Amino acid sequence: MKKIITAAITGAVHTPGMSPYLPITPDEIVNDAVGAAKAGAAVVHIHARNPENGEPTSDLSIMREIVTAIKKQSDVIVCITTGGQIGMSIEERIAAVPDMKPELASCNAGSLNFVLTPALKRLKPKYEWEEKFLSGTQDLIFSNTFKGLSQYVETMYANGTMPEFEVYDVGMINNIAYMMREGVIKAPVYIQFVMGILGGLPATVRNLNFLVETADMLLGDTFKWSVAAAGKDQFALTTAALAMGGHVRVGLEDNLYLEKGVLAKHSSEQVERIRKALEVLGHEVATPEEARQILSLKGNHAVNF
Amino acid sequence: MKKIITAAITGAVHTPGMSPYLPITPDEIVNDAVGAAKAGAAVVHIHARNPENGEPTSDLSIMREIVTAIKKQSDVIVCITTGGQIGMSIEERIAAVPDMKPELASCNAGSLNFVLTPALKRLKPKYEWEEKFLSGTQDLIFSNTFKGLSQYVETMYANGTMPEFEVYDVGMINNIAYMMREGVIKAPVYIQFVMGILGGLPATVRNLNFLVETADMLLGDTFKWSVAAAGKDQFALTTAALAMGGHVRVGLEDNLYLEKGVLAKHSSEQVERIRKALEVLGHEVATPEEARQILSLKGNHAVNF
Amino acid sequence: MKKIITAAITGAVHTPGMSPYLPITPDEIVNDAVGAAKAGAAVVHIHARNPENGEPTSDLSIMREIVTAIKKQSDVIVCITTGGQIGMSIEERIAAVPDMKPELASCNAGSLNFVLTPALKRLKPKYEWEEKFLSGTQDLIFSNTFKGLSQYVETMYANGTMPEFEVYDVGMINNIAYMMREGVIKAPVYIQFVMGILGGLPATVRNLNFLVETADMLLGDTFKWSVAAAGKDQFALTTAALAMGGHVRVGLEDNLYLEKGVLAKHSSEQVERIRKALEVLGHEVATPEEARQILSLKGNHAVNF
Amino acid sequence: MKKIITAAITGAVHTPGMSPYLPITPDEIVNDAVGAAKAGAAVVHIHARNPENGEPTSDLSIMREIVTAIKKQSDVIVCITTGGQIGMSIEERIAAVPDMKPELASCNAGSLNFVLTPALKRLKPKYEWEEKFLSGTQDLIFSNTFKGLSQYVETMYANGTMPEFEVYDVGMINNIAYMMREGVIKAPVYIQFVMGILGGLPATVRNLNFLVETADMLLGDTFKWSVAAAGKDQFALTTAALAMGGHVRVGLEDNLYLEKGVLAKHSSEQVERIRKALEVLGHEVATPEEARQILSLKGNHAVNF
Repeated sequence: MKKIITAAITGAVHTPGMSPYLPITPDEIVNDAVGAAKAGAAVVHIHARNPENGEPTSDLSIMREIVTAIKKQSDVIVCITTGGQIGMSIEERIAAVPDMKPELASCNAGSLNFVLTPALKRLKPKYEWEEKFLSGTQDLIFSNTFKGLSQYVETMYANGTMPEFEVYDVGMINNIAYMMREGVIKAPVYIQFVMGILGGLPATVRNLNFLVETADMLLGDTFKWSVAAAGKDQFALTTAALAMGGHVRVGLEDNLYLEKGVLAKHSSEQVERIRKALEVLGHEVATPEEARQILSLKGNHAVNF
Repeated sequence: MKKIITAAITGAVHTPGMSPYLPITPDEIVNDAVGAAKAGAAVVHIHARNPENGEPTSDLSIMREIVTAIKKQSDVIVCITTGGQIGMSIEERIAAVPDMKPELASCNAGSLNFVLTPALKRLKPKYEWEEKFLSGTQDLIFSNTFKGLSQYVETMYANGTMPEFEVYDVGMINNIAYMMREGVIKAPVYIQFVMGILGGLPATVRNLNFLVETADMLLGDTFKWSVAAAGKDQFALTTAALAMGGHVRVGLEDNLYLEKGVLAKHSSEQVERIRKALEVLGHEVATPEEARQILSLKGNHAVNF
Repeated sequence: MKKIITAAITGAVHTPGMSPYLPITPDEIVNDAVGAAKAGAAVVHIHARNPENGEPTSDLSIMREIVTAIKKQSDVIVCITTGGQIGMSIEERIAAVPDMKPELASCNAGSLNFVLTPALKRLKPKYEWEEKFLSGTQDLIFSNTFKGLSQYVETMYANGTMPEFEVYDVGMINNIAYMMREGVIKAPVYIQFVMGILGGLPATVRNLNFLVETADMLLGDTFKWSVAAAGKDQFALTTAALAMGGHVRVGLEDNLYLEKGVLAKHSSEQVERIRKALEVLGHEVATPEEARQILSLKGNHAVNF
Repeated sequence: MKKIITAAITGAVHTPGMSPYLPITPDEIVNDAVGAAKAGAAVVHIHARNPENGEPTSDLSIMREIVTAIKKQSDVIVCITTGGQIGMSIEERIAAVPDMKPELASCNAGSLNFVLTPALKRLKPKYEWEEKFLSGTQDLIFSNTFKGLSQYVETMYANGTMPEFEVYDVGMINNIAYMMREGVIKAPVYIQFVMGILGGLPATVRNLNFLVETADMLLGDTFKWSVAAAGKDQFALTTAALAMGGHVRVGLEDNLYLEKGVLAKHSSEQVERIRKALEVLGHEVATPEEARQILSLKGNHAVNF
């Protein structure tokens, strides 16, 4: 079977002090994304950062710079985040979608605590904001209300963008099922199970199995799924997902390491590694074109960048 | 085995337009609580409402009036809510605990969307606030950050109050396990699985089984558990919980009905009903004294009301 | 919802020394069955015993005597066993079906060890055969090969008898699914999960949940299910089954007790007890006519006794 | 972590007509075993076959010839089967253990139907016995009564042989737990989950997860586990097992293919393949010495061959 590898390039969780290889500038992000695509990723999941200090940013011009450069070098599918930052309105978080009309955009399927304080224990910060940012998550809720979720989805559908639903805990599958019954969310549905966030569901195969079963029961045949796991369990969970029939996400957003004690220099290293598991299982890596078919995407001729 | 029945009297979810039997005034709340205790509840879970229009309130004097009157008439264990209202600070939500030093107080173990809009479909509102309140939950997060959770727990421990952890989704069990490792939460732990809230985990026996298994794995022998289920699944879930070895919560906060189409006139009717299931299973209902032993509570001589 | 209560009257597992109330003679078996039907059982599951010493027997004339007498007094559905005894051929075990053409007959869905030796610890035998019988199960396989299963099913279909598939472990659900794909077993399928036999699956709600989920996955919408649990877990499992949407089996075949330390005098006492749980859950007990509809049975005008 | 790869060389399920690469003669079996060990297997699981026609045999002299030759060429752990053939007594099946006193021997943890008839559909038999053998399994029970299980275990303990418990369905874990409580089986326990046999539990990650969870609950910290999966699911299940923390078995006994449509020429090819998954996961392959430590084995200086 064809399996989609997504590479999540830089995210908004890791900070520059955690790894010198975390891509920060548009160039670094583009290079990492294009490298991941060459290694086999059919999708790259993109956040932007302030090139000065690596702080996550929602600056549309930076995002546009990044995705435009990626498109020039690769036919990889670009998935733009709508995660936003603390204090941003729904409108600000979704702004990139009507602006760039990507094929795919993340759409977080519920609210949860999102706590990164354990990372403080071993952090050697490079910039001032890092410690404050991580400490602040002790009081952080990743806010994705039903109202927000509706607006994100409607905006995406209006712009030909497929939502990739990020599911952090079991109840969020029911959120999706409820919104399908209400007609807000439409089949086909693509789910990214994001496991291992403190505040959400821990990254275990047992938990993944329950998520997939629950989605089977609540969503029937209408969905495709992938898994991303934060930190050291990245390869255990993605490998198990492949054995269970799912697609996978790797990349430096999820895990800075290639193996215990060894920092990954590029997301592509992780793509290459998970490809080996994929091959052991007799699967084939999906090209961007094949992934577009699997996920019912419009194609990158129809994006606005 | 001795099984604890908790009666949740009025809560902050149902509105006066949904049932004429929803207790609103302090007198009504007290009567419902005392009646539930007589019927076999060892614990009553208490919210206060504005006696004028039934709107949930955090007015300490009303809460004090209620719990004082209950204590005069019954030795039932009083569990005070710390759920609060939208926009309240952590300090405001926890204020009843240092003030009244109850034996037990609710402590919500994580943040989630908390959506009541489906109730609008059949609502015939009695007061103006009801529709606005229910509609507003489309954009509502029930906010319980790690910072808040720490403060609630510490305040409770400092006042001899045992936290009753309300768990709405699977990841929240991990929140508790994490805080136990960090030394913030101490054994023994008492968990109320609150199922069937839109935004959290649906009320199914399959889901309850997964919650209990997960708690067994993450918390070991250190915890006791009970289940509350919102709406029509109340008796299916509480009956299954008794068959699985747990304790149970019923009451008008969770379900306004006694059976399909029949409104419950008092929480005591639900207590009597679940007692029958308890007896079929060969269990005995725990008295307040027995419940104090099971839950390691200080006794109502040590409360400040 | 209408829920079917089956009463399994005497079985082939318990021995006279275990309880003075175990029905042995045809009269006792008939009385117990008719009493159970009056108490609410829609189905009675029948084994015959040697009236002299209570030993299980496959004597067709005794079985005929029993089922004929039941039919005279009650319109309850009669389900005849095909469990047989050690050393009997497939033909001998199925013989009652072409002979009496019952509406329902048990059909064991796989082979397993079937060990009763733990009962020896507290046995005060009344007859000589009891100890030898129980000890012998240390080396006993309850033999139900695929060949046998095919023959039982085909004979039943040829005689208008619906098979009730006894499932003792998870893999047996797959046996049924396989035989459905092969065209040997036809929808609709009725499954009795028989839990708590040493050699098979222990009687826990967790295990029942897994059985039901597995059947949902492998058999789709084509099946109805009920649960029987051996021994002290009878009411925990049957009560949980009702909460999960299933039907239930009680009776002295499964459990000789009404509660801890109290022997049941009649199967009807257990029927009455589980009815209380059924009512708590808002279900209604199915009459024999309603059970015939639910299970697609031919009616007792079409049996040959 | 160190992970044990077991190679099951030839078994008693596949027949010569299914693959020209199935090892038949002692030389072929020895070569396949030694090659698997060189590729990374720490354990080889050995059955003997009639060198004339490939029929499984319990001839002790052939088994002795094989294991002696393996020991001369490799320090791999030899695990001898006690599966036997139809009609053999317990004594005959266990005979190799007192005779050769191996470090490890298989010990089947319960009885089940063991049906190989689906293989008939594509079989081009090479020898006369093959079709009859496969057809016959329609009526076959793999007989492992509690009495037999006790005798196998006691004989193994008396000869310094560690039993490897083959578990084919969920209830068999309870058989082991029961015999541990009875003092027949002693910790530490080593379990091989053998999945995908028609008659037993199908080979799915969901089922494996349930097996492992069940063993965790019933056996506590006293056991190690590995998984073997029959047929095309071999790599999905073994890969998932590695992700879940288990050990794995591959080899031509379990699966004749390397991937869809490609016959494996040697068990070593499968060993090499699963090693890649092991490496993706950051594990290391256990040497025979390391496996001896993990499984508490006596060492091959203490065998009688």
